[in-house]
Amino acid sequence: MDAVEAANSGHPGMPMGMADVATVLFQRYLKFDAADPKWPDRDRFVLSAGHGSMLLYAALHLTGYARPTIEDIKAFRQVGSPCAGHPENFELPGVECTTGPLGQGLAMAVGMAIAERHLNAEFGDALVDHRTWVVAGDGCLMEGVNHEAIGIAGHLKLGRLIVLWDDNKITIDGPISLSSSEDIPARFRATGWHVVECDGHDEADISRAFDEAITDERPTLVRCKTIIGKGAPNFQGTSKTHGSPLGADEVAAARETLGWRHPAFEVPDDIRETWLTAGKRGVGPHSQWQQRVKNSSNAAELSRRMAGDLPASFSLDAHIQGLISDPKKIATRTASQLALDAINAALPETVGGSADLTPSNNTLTKGLEDLNADNYGGRYIRYGIREFGMAAAMNGLALHGGVIPYGGTFLVFSDYARPAIRLSALQRARVVYVMTHDSIGLGEDGPTHQPVEHVMSLRLIPNLEVWRPCDAVETAEAWGAAVARRDGPSLLALSRQNLAQLSTGGAAMGGYRLMAAKAPRKVVLIASGSEVELAVAVREALEAEGFGGDVVSMPCWSRFDAQSQEYCDDILPPDILRVSIEAGVTTGWERYTGIHGLRFGLDRFGASGPAGDLFKHFGLTAAAIVPQILERLNAN
Amino acid sequence: MDAVEAANSGHPGMPMGMADVATVLFQRYLKFDAADPKWPDRDRFVLSAGHGSMLLYAALHLTGYARPTIEDIKAFRQVGSPCAGHPENFELPGVECTTGPLGQGLAMAVGMAIAERHLNAEFGDALVDHRTWVVAGDGCLMEGVNHEAIGIAGHLKLGRLIVLWDDNKITIDGPISLSSSEDIPARFRATGWHVVECDGHDEADISRAFDEAITDERPTLVRCKTIIGKGAPNFQGTSKTHGSPLGADEVAAARETLGWRHPAFEVPDDIRETWLTAGKRGVGPHSQWQQRVKNSSNAAELSRRMAGDLPASFSLDAHIQGLISDPKKIATRTASQLALDAINAALPETVGGSADLTPSNNTLTKGLEDLNADNYGGRYIRYGIREFGMAAAMNGLALHGGVIPYGGTFLVFSDYARPAIRLSALQRARVVYVMTHDSIGLGEDGPTHQPVEHVMSLRLIPNLEVWRPCDAVETAEAWGAAVARRDGPSLLALSRQNLAQLSTGGAAMGGYRLMAAKAPRKVVLIASGSEVELAVAVREALEAEGFGGDVVSMPCWSRFDAQSQEYCDDILPPDILRVSIEAGVTTGWERYTGIHGLRFGLDRFGASGPAGDLFKHFGLTAAAIVPQILERLNAN
Repeated sequence: MDAVEAANSGHPGMPMGMADVATVLFQRYLKFDAADPKWPDRDRFVLSAGHGSMLLYAALHLTGYARPTIEDIKAFRQVGSPCAGHPENFELPGVECTTGPLGQGLAMAVGMAIAERHLNAEFGDALVDHRTWVVAGDGCLMEGVNHEAIGIAGHLKLGRLIVLWDDNKITIDGPISLSSSEDIPARFRATGWHVVECDGHDEADISRAFDEAITDERPTLVRCKTIIGKGAPNFQGTSKTHGSPLGADEVAAARETLGWRHPAFEVPDDIRETWLTAGKRGVGPHSQWQQRVKNSSNAAELSRRMAGDLPASFSLDAHIQGLISDPKKIATRTASQLALDAINAALPETVGGSADLTPSNNTLTKGLEDLNADNYGGRYIRYGIREFGMAAAMNGLALHGGVIPYGGTFLVFSDYARPAIRLSALQRARVVYVMTHDSIGLGEDGPTHQPVEHVMSLRLIPNLEVWRPCDAVETAEAWGAAVARRDGPSLLALSRQNLAQLSTGGAAMGGYRLMAAKAPRKVVLIASGSEVELAVAVREALEAEGFGGDVVSMPCWSRFDAQSQEYCDDILPPDILRVSIEAGVTTGWERYTGIHGLRFGLDRFGASGPAGDLFKHFGLTAAAIVPQILERLNAN
Repeated sequence: MDAVEAANSGHPGMPMGMADVATVLFQRYLKFDAADPKWPDRDRFVLSAGHGSMLLYAALHLTGYARPTIEDIKAFRQVGSPCAGHPENFELPGVECTTGPLGQGLAMAVGMAIAERHLNAEFGDALVDHRTWVVAGDGCLMEGVNHEAIGIAGHLKLGRLIVLWDDNKITIDGPISLSSSEDIPARFRATGWHVVECDGHDEADISRAFDEAITDERPTLVRCKTIIGKGAPNFQGTSKTHGSPLGADEVAAARETLGWRHPAFEVPDDIRETWLTAGKRGVGPHSQWQQRVKNSSNAAELSRRMAGDLPASFSLDAHIQGLISDPKKIATRTASQLALDAINAALPETVGGSADLTPSNNTLTKGLEDLNADNYGGRYIRYGIREFGMAAAMNGLALHGGVIPYGGTFLVFSDYARPAIRLSALQRARVVYVMTHDSIGLGEDGPTHQPVEHVMSLRLIPNLEVWRPCDAVETAEAWGAAVARRDGPSLLALSRQNLAQLSTGGAAMGGYRLMAAKAPRKVVLIASGSEVELAVAVREALEAEGFGGDVVSMPCWSRFDAQSQEYCDDILPPDILRVSIEAGVTTGWERYTGIHGLRFGLDRFGASGPAGDLFKHFGLTAAAIVPQILERLNAN
């Protein structure tokens, strides 16, 4: 309450309402060692109701984490403080994931709980044996993603996942009865969960509920009946405490009500001592675990996996050389499966899956078993028709560490998963999205299924590497880059239709000269994915007319933009007509063509028909494009 | 099965599995008049499992709709046929909404059912009294949006909403047990729904279930136990029938099994007669309804509302003139509320709401009552923390007709709603999105809440008008354009922070010269929203150095792009330095600045801190920008 007051911004209600529950959790149940926040076998704690960040910062500070210091907390919500408005995993060890966008913390926790069981199946109880705890609010449980997440958790019987529901009956608009009449426990039970209840302000009752949660084999929802803003005598139990400072008067009144005599940011010695002792509960278990690791033949492998290092021997070079010596005209979704065959055989840490489009996404490779409640050691997750839940779970898998998740759906449904894709990028999570059916080239399914704006809009998300490879070779290169990337997600946009193999490598530069002009160069054709083949056909026709043309394949904008100015100017000479061809919106391509270049694409929704008919219908053929380029060249 | 075969593409399983249920529905229950597909008091039928489009096309054809003809059906999934791969409302009357992206049909149906009760409250049983029927598959019920949708429906007690669940236990990957263990009826009951079951291949049992559904006051889930691909003797009951043609052999075998002796696309006379008779069931009720309308004093108003015409007297001019004569330095979210005060007073057809951010979105105006189960006549919906469900419901409200929905959330959470925003645009639905907190200007909530890529990525969605007004005047103009727009959605990106009133009108052009250079013009500064104020400050500094600068306010790209080349060249002269300033990603602005212009923005995630500190931190101040422009001007 004091930190929110000092910041003159923030959410006091949830931290005050859940303080008792958090106290029981951090002092008695949560397994952690404040001196080593990255201990692999720690319990994971996820504050899904991320606006209550001060609750987490307070707990981390009091239990003895090096950060946040009391000075960090005084600077809550200020530029430079690790105590951001919402918890950020990249700012503070002890913050397991970045939360605030409601529902996603819970959904990421499902991924963490999967990772725990999966690694347990491989490394055994001695090395991997921990729980995932979540604090979720009513908002988290209203968001659609919670339905997908608890469906996965219930189906997979993730008994080590415990969700503490802050049942305070208040939302921003007022009482929850304004917008919901749901029996939440009944819904969780219907989805295979165990449900217990407690008085969220009675420590003994909280403990009893936690004990029941721990001993059940199903995931557990602990309904914690709480009063939001508890202790603020005039505001508690109302939405007034939710999202703004209490104000000096109410803070003073709360001090009075709680019998708290100490000034802001001062922690009395006895209380600090109690908390610091709690923060050391894990020291013994931690050192015993270290001993077990030392005695284990799996120590090096677990260490490698948790560090996120690929095996030194890993390379896709042989696979790529094989393609070059035996070219394949296949869809890039099929090329992706070939690359995955090589990757999954060499990297035991990959955990694949699809949102119920396995035969379309080509995400399942030979020998991969399903990961399910009977076989946590499996490496393929049947996520069901849950794109958002899948993406959020993958974030949790990646952030837990020890696994590299990938998962597939249709590119158009990246919209369903977009909030989690954004969090992959913000959290710097090593997640690989396999998005197939990447344009009107998917054909008859029509405009609801045809991405038009998606590739470009995904390019706009900071720290997301978007790949649209043109053939089997570039697909393999993209996969190589994606699994090697440690500090962020990658997304592969892949074709349904077959594409000629044109490349002999170069995708790692982001954009490169695939073919150089024969006749004196008059034009540079820039394309991605399936339209590179089209650009090659356009070039051929132009060359036949005596106009030389380069073809630049541009599978990854952000990689290209990271090259030197010299390189970029060589590939895209400023003084020459530049033309982009991509079966999607043209807005954005001005970046490479300039305003006065030409841009061929699709600035409207697609249509239903065979792929070839659609490309023709929308003017994306050499026959339609060449005359327009010639007209421009002749005019110049 | 024959149409899918002819197209060599499509989904035979669902139409064959649900044929019996659809027969009972269309022949006995659904209220419609095939001769007038737009009869306002018809029942709405939504095929949420849109991949089963052939089921709907067949029903429309057989019941005597003018389209699709048998020729249309023969051209299923071909360019030019109204029988698209997934049903499209803009292609065929009788298709109430565009489905295929799973879960959204159900969620739109919730909006339709709300519209029905709302208009019923206003116009009475004599004029508005119909049901909304939905066919949903397991995919629809796994998608998160279904949780949000049924939560709204249960809370609002939408008893005229009936969902027919195609319980065939099959998904694309295989049996549903691969990915789900949920007790769906129990979940629906937990959310306030009535649940009945039937054998989906027994017409009497289906009728019994429908009768029970109709008489219950709660929304009803009818569990129809079906066999996917029923009749295909070797494939039925398996995922083989789901998404590809059965093949000639299996089609022949199915004919044998079903005892169907007729060639493809031939309907025997007796069967056609039965269906045509069913298609005329509504003729009597329709003419009685017309009679009641004729006798009603509300006839003209209902007709106006259903036609989507605004009252002839409606105008925001007085409001805008009031602002101009008494300028206000307020946040554009506040300006939006002022505009809404005027709109809601003048347009009884608006139905507002917010995803639990009412006090932040400023979407509630004086005198608006909540629309809830006790007061369907209210005009404000407490959507709860359900952004996607809200957006989809708004699509349903708009497509039902008679109302103009608007709803608010934070701009960053447009990602949660994005699949429905796309469908608003594709379906040409008149929906207004009120998206506040539109940049790092929201301050301390940090990067999880700060849109960076959102404005630009929304601009990429075809047929979506995205507005980012700079002040109270432009906000009012944007609102005026949004409610007047009949053929598509509008989205307003609005500031949390106060902004000076700079404009005296011009936003309708999309982009316009807000201030002209005083000194000889050397630069054009292009900005949107809160950065227009910044552009004005930059201009002032440049003018002080003797460099003349225009300030162009660009609140709506798509409107600007629709202007004449002459106009655009006048506003953005090709031969002058052009500079964009927007607190978001710069990619895309090359469209107006050219490659060699300057672009100021934020190509990374934001941070947590007071708004002013953040603008400074990220170099979005006149002090940081002016020297860079001067450097360029001096170099030129």
